[in-house]
Amino acid sequence: MRRQEAKRREENEIEFARIVAFSDGVFAIAITLLVLSLNVDDLNRDDLWRGIWDLRENFLAYGISFAVIGRFWLVHHRFFGEVTAFDGRLLALNMLYLAFIVLIPFSSQLLGDFGGETPSVVVYAVNLIACIVVGAWMFLYAQGAGLTLAKAESRRASIVRAGYIAAVFLLSIPVAFVAPGWAPVLWLALFYDPADRYLEDRG
Amino acid sequence: MRRQEAKRREENEIEFARIVAFSDGVFAIAITLLVLSLNVDDLNRDDLWRGIWDLRENFLAYGISFAVIGRFWLVHHRFFGEVTAFDGRLLALNMLYLAFIVLIPFSSQLLGDFGGETPSVVVYAVNLIACIVVGAWMFLYAQGAGLTLAKAESRRASIVRAGYIAAVFLLSIPVAFVAPGWAPVLWLALFYDPADRYLEDRG
Amino acid sequence: MRRQEAKRREENEIEFARIVAFSDGVFAIAITLLVLSLNVDDLNRDDLWRGIWDLRENFLAYGISFAVIGRFWLVHHRFFGEVTAFDGRLLALNMLYLAFIVLIPFSSQLLGDFGGETPSVVVYAVNLIACIVVGAWMFLYAQGAGLTLAKAESRRASIVRAGYIAAVFLLSIPVAFVAPGWAPVLWLALFYDPADRYLEDRG
Amino acid sequence: MRRQEAKRREENEIEFARIVAFSDGVFAIAITLLVLSLNVDDLNRDDLWRGIWDLRENFLAYGISFAVIGRFWLVHHRFFGEVTAFDGRLLALNMLYLAFIVLIPFSSQLLGDFGGETPSVVVYAVNLIACIVVGAWMFLYAQGAGLTLAKAESRRASIVRAGYIAAVFLLSIPVAFVAPGWAPVLWLALFYDPADRYLEDRG
Repeated sequence: MRRQEAKRREENEIEFARIVAFSDGVFAIAITLLVLSLNVDDLNRDDLWRGIWDLRENFLAYGISFAVIGRFWLVHHRFFGEVTAFDGRLLALNMLYLAFIVLIPFSSQLLGDFGGETPSVVVYAVNLIACIVVGAWMFLYAQGAGLTLAKAESRRASIVRAGYIAAVFLLSIPVAFVAPGWAPVLWLALFYDPADRYLEDRG
Repeated sequence: MRRQEAKRREENEIEFARIVAFSDGVFAIAITLLVLSLNVDDLNRDDLWRGIWDLRENFLAYGISFAVIGRFWLVHHRFFGEVTAFDGRLLALNMLYLAFIVLIPFSSQLLGDFGGETPSVVVYAVNLIACIVVGAWMFLYAQGAGLTLAKAESRRASIVRAGYIAAVFLLSIPVAFVAPGWAPVLWLALFYDPADRYLEDRG
Repeated sequence: MRRQEAKRREENEIEFARIVAFSDGVFAIAITLLVLSLNVDDLNRDDLWRGIWDLRENFLAYGISFAVIGRFWLVHHRFFGEVTAFDGRLLALNMLYLAFIVLIPFSSQLLGDFGGETPSVVVYAVNLIACIVVGAWMFLYAQGAGLTLAKAESRRASIVRAGYIAAVFLLSIPVAFVAPGWAPVLWLALFYDPADRYLEDRG
Repeated sequence: MRRQEAKRREENEIEFARIVAFSDGVFAIAITLLVLSLNVDDLNRDDLWRGIWDLRENFLAYGISFAVIGRFWLVHHRFFGEVTAFDGRLLALNMLYLAFIVLIPFSSQLLGDFGGETPSVVVYAVNLIACIVVGAWMFLYAQGAGLTLAKAESRRASIVRAGYIAAVFLLSIPVAFVAPGWAPVLWLALFYDPADRYLEDRG
């Protein structure tokens, strides 16, 4: 793309706040739409306990995806907390990033409805890897273009974090072909935050 | 989890506002999605009055759930109004709390579609108890970690309130096994606020 | 309900902003959910133009409901712009008001799917009258309790406005029993604003 | 419509912020609802890869519509960034504009489900042209009524931008009658921004 003057945050606080609020809105809606994958219409009155029990994989997918989108939101949140200027390219990357976040309810429903199948696990993992790759691209672009305040520690923490998450999902793709049912279990590793430990070690 | 430095609210007002706005967005979307449980597709032109009449339990579930989510939002609202600092654990607890709030439209539709059945009443009550337990956990953690300004009165009021609501829902589980149709009636007791009376008695 | 100390707006600006933002969020979601009543699933590839043409009543219901929710939002917007203090009762009335606003996508879909039928027109009109009655209740309560700055003119303008809208919908109920297809046409009268004229006459 | 006193932005910052926030909320919800057009229910366990592959036109429609709504949001964003006063007419035009934005998820699903058909391409193009026409109307009204700060360059940039986008969609209507499958490809031209180049040439 073409060079464009970056707008400084202090001088465009309202515009900046709108970008962040829009992103937050998209995150909040995407995370809430997850509940629509818990489909009540297929249940029947005669065997309600069994019907609810049959939704267990959908509940698991709901829980995983809620944690995943929540975690992405926190990372996005920290990233924009340190952004000091923005240009058209950063906005475009942010939009591309959100486009993959909004896909998660789809991938999540696929995972919930066809939990033990290879395709749903692969689609889910690819979706999340796309989020991480675009997120990292956005971060590195902001670093390179001097749009962020991100201190060295925070930069390293972000890279450790993104790398860790991406590795978990990449690893789950071969697992999906051998034992698709185990891939989601692997994703529980996401609750662990290597960057927190990193900060602690220094403290 | 590991110790982490808490961020003070005054110095991170924008970040703090974003957390609150995100939570509010999730509440607003969850409360609005309740309308999707009122399904127009099953109605037919020849007997429209009857079809609308058959939705009466769905309307009741809608009304109860709207009041319930609205009440939870008010409690969340008061709680964050007194928070003075936040750390990673508080954010994680808030996310867990929201995950149970977002489940309410699902439980509500279950209740509306299968109103007189034990499983739907139990699922609904368990969902709300989970909200209350995680909410209380969040409150007590914030108290213990010195993250909230909550004065003694407000603390007592919050505990009275949470205890009262939890008691109503716990009581409704045995009722659900004996006379499932009566459990929702019991929930009407939620419109009463014991903490308001408490404040009044002192005034 | 019991007496409770009203909180003044200046001293609780953040809490006040949250209430308004929550209401705005609910309005924004309700107005956007209207699009879900335009159902693509029933269309078929062989006769697509005809299928789209068959949706004409749904498009009409969409347009009317968008204008109606938009207008309610403007009225709510003006009302809260003049509120100077709030108490528990005002919050409860606001929540009740929102509960009827959120029902509009349901009533709207009923109207779109069964446009020429008496029940759908009656349900739609009753829903909107409920919004107006609760809105007026909220306004009068705020006036009586001294929670609003509303100047005499603005008060008269609000009453003229609410009365006019309520009259249009009340009138449409008997019309719905005689000639249901004509009731929505009557609602087009909503685009006219008697209070604007009132202000102009004085200017 | 009748003359009405315009409210200046500085003196009504909160009211102004609410209008912008409401619009942003509607944009954020509309862009997120696009994911609902990716329907998981029609897939079946036995041939999941094929079912996902069959959704390719839906993914394409999702991507195009995400980019389109994102782009409209940016334009709206820039426009309101320069608005210095607002009146009833500007609010009404903004509401009409949002009504067409909210229709995009419908048109997008039509396009995804019936991608190679003339009617879906025409409906989609007409929807977007309506957005652009109402957007331009809003911009020109604000200019004429002195409600915007928009400098000459920004005005020219906006006109170049709107004209370019409208031309792309108008051109796609005859294409839709001859070769409907190619119209969406034409829309990829939207990623190009003639106004950016214009600004660059002057710089």
